[in-house]
Amino acid sequence: MSFYDKLKFNADGLIPAIIQDHANGRVLMMAWMNRASLETTIATGKTHFWSRSRQKFWMKGESSGHTQTVKEIAFDCDGDTLLIQVEQAGAACHEGYRSCFFRSAAADGSDRVTEPQLKPPGEIYGKK
Amino acid sequence: MSFYDKLKFNADGLIPAIIQDHANGRVLMMAWMNRASLETTIATGKTHFWSRSRQKFWMKGESSGHTQTVKEIAFDCDGDTLLIQVEQAGAACHEGYRSCFFRSAAADGSDRVTEPQLKPPGEIYGKK
Repeated sequence: MSFYDKLKFNADGLIPAIIQDHANGRVLMMAWMNRASLETTIATGKTHFWSRSRQKFWMKGESSGHTQTVKEIAFDCDGDTLLIQVEQAGAACHEGYRSCFFRSAAADGSDRVTEPQLKPPGEIYGKK
Repeated sequence: MSFYDKLKFNADGLIPAIIQDHANGRVLMMAWMNRASLETTIATGKTHFWSRSRQKFWMKGESSGHTQTVKEIAFDCDGDTLLIQVEQAGAACHEGYRSCFFRSAAADGSDRVTEPQLKPPGEIYGKK
């Protein structure tokens, strides 16, 4: 039995993938995969996703150069979420932060930025 | 502006929450919250979720005693995913593993268990 048979893609054929930095455990981002993007991720060793907003298959880093090299792919007990360990080149976040989770919330409703911005977004996407 | 206004709940009023062990960075599980369960999580300091399969509000650990004490709540650049740091009592997984992500996949389609089972599920739920 292939592990694919243990996965549950949702009604849209998608499964959420949590992306974690294998070197330090920082959770970098969460994005969605369909079966084809997961197969391509495994075949190429680079993360590929399905963009729900753009309805488009994409390789992480195809515009920015900030690719993710896959180290390990785990899945949860229900088979409905992936956890992928990667080696991240540059910033995972399109806003120029290492992690997309760069803001934390406080009980009073405020929030604060918890990590430095590596690059302004214009530098990431403006130099192609 | 409250951080709630920066969050995007989906069409069902839900947002995925990645739960991470604050002590060692292990990703423990992913579950869904609605606004009420997030508010209760913040008010009580214990994680609360919305079960999509049971259509029910629940506190993590209400049956097992394996509660999660919240240390920090972060959210991503798009405001559509939460990352919550917790102190985990016992096993996060209903199958008795510390993490729900106890299986990893290989390129040949096989998978393997990567961590020890702390308790058989019968022991977790059978002793109420």
